[in-house]
Amino acid sequence: MQKTIYRVAAALTIDGKIALNSRQFTNWSSSEDKLIFRKMLDESDVIISGHNTYKVSKRFLDRRNCIVFTRSVKDTLRYKKTILFCNPKNVDVQRLIQRLDYRAVTIIGGAPTFSYFLDKDLLDELHLTIEPIIFGRGILLFQDVKIDVVNLKLTKAKKLNKKGSLYLVYKKI
Amino acid sequence: MQKTIYRVAAALTIDGKIALNSRQFTNWSSSEDKLIFRKMLDESDVIISGHNTYKVSKRFLDRRNCIVFTRSVKDTLRYKKTILFCNPKNVDVQRLIQRLDYRAVTIIGGAPTFSYFLDKDLLDELHLTIEPIIFGRGILLFQDVKIDVVNLKLTKAKKLNKKGSLYLVYKKI
Repeated sequence: MQKTIYRVAAALTIDGKIALNSRQFTNWSSSEDKLIFRKMLDESDVIISGHNTYKVSKRFLDRRNCIVFTRSVKDTLRYKKTILFCNPKNVDVQRLIQRLDYRAVTIIGGAPTFSYFLDKDLLDELHLTIEPIIFGRGILLFQDVKIDVVNLKLTKAKKLNKKGSLYLVYKKI
Repeated sequence: MQKTIYRVAAALTIDGKIALNSRQFTNWSSSEDKLIFRKMLDESDVIISGHNTYKVSKRFLDRRNCIVFTRSVKDTLRYKKTILFCNPKNVDVQRLIQRLDYRAVTIIGGAPTFSYFLDKDLLDELHLTIEPIIFGRGILLFQDVKIDVVNLKLTKAKKLNKKGSLYLVYKKI
């Protein structure tokens, strides 16, 4: 059986922030990052996002298979043909993804959703674009994670433009 | 008059942490990062650190010119021949550095000390090593900064070893 691959896709500031606040769409990242991000979504069987991220990204998520994490449903609820609402507190998410036969899973945030998969030790790959910008405050990639320190390996590093947006791929070792 | 250059030197995790807690020495970074860090210190006229960072790094700081930020003195106090205690709340740090004729200033943390210089818009260069590790919690590079978003330019990116520790230099634009 082919293994399911769980990938994080995120744009980060130099100081490790994904947004200034939880309602901010990632409109601050470079056009080169946005191209890579869209390509990753195109190559995914399913996209997983939190409810806030879904709300600010609806426009380009609604045509894609999505699982949206939310506490507003008990377990799972088919919201649209492509959109499945899911309460990760009451659902075995890994089993759900297996049952739906999804192989390429891309997690697009926000912090609680990224942290959920890190805490379950499910992350196989991190695809990060580090933009040459400092927020100095805001939302982190991960928050309040209980898991031990995780060691990864950098498998790709590519400078995307003149100002130095960096596309980095890390894989589990 | 030659301009004073203010440089940050720090090792970061993928998720933007500089330590698991404020008493942790940067013993988790790669040997390649440590070499770069020592070289930067050797090329500095003065090193600036917070009191916690000073306490955990004493061993290799005591032979170097240091300004140690602390609230335990009123303004400045010569603690040892090379070590000057300084309360940044009551001292014009930029003027002090000018007066002492320091040109190459390296700031080694922790977060409140990095944030002080970011808030004053004094940072010219960031020398960061991103280690392929996730802490998921811990101390950030910057905290509670009031300044607006800061745009920088990546001027150097070098892979330091097989696992992919990345040495990055960002400069103010």
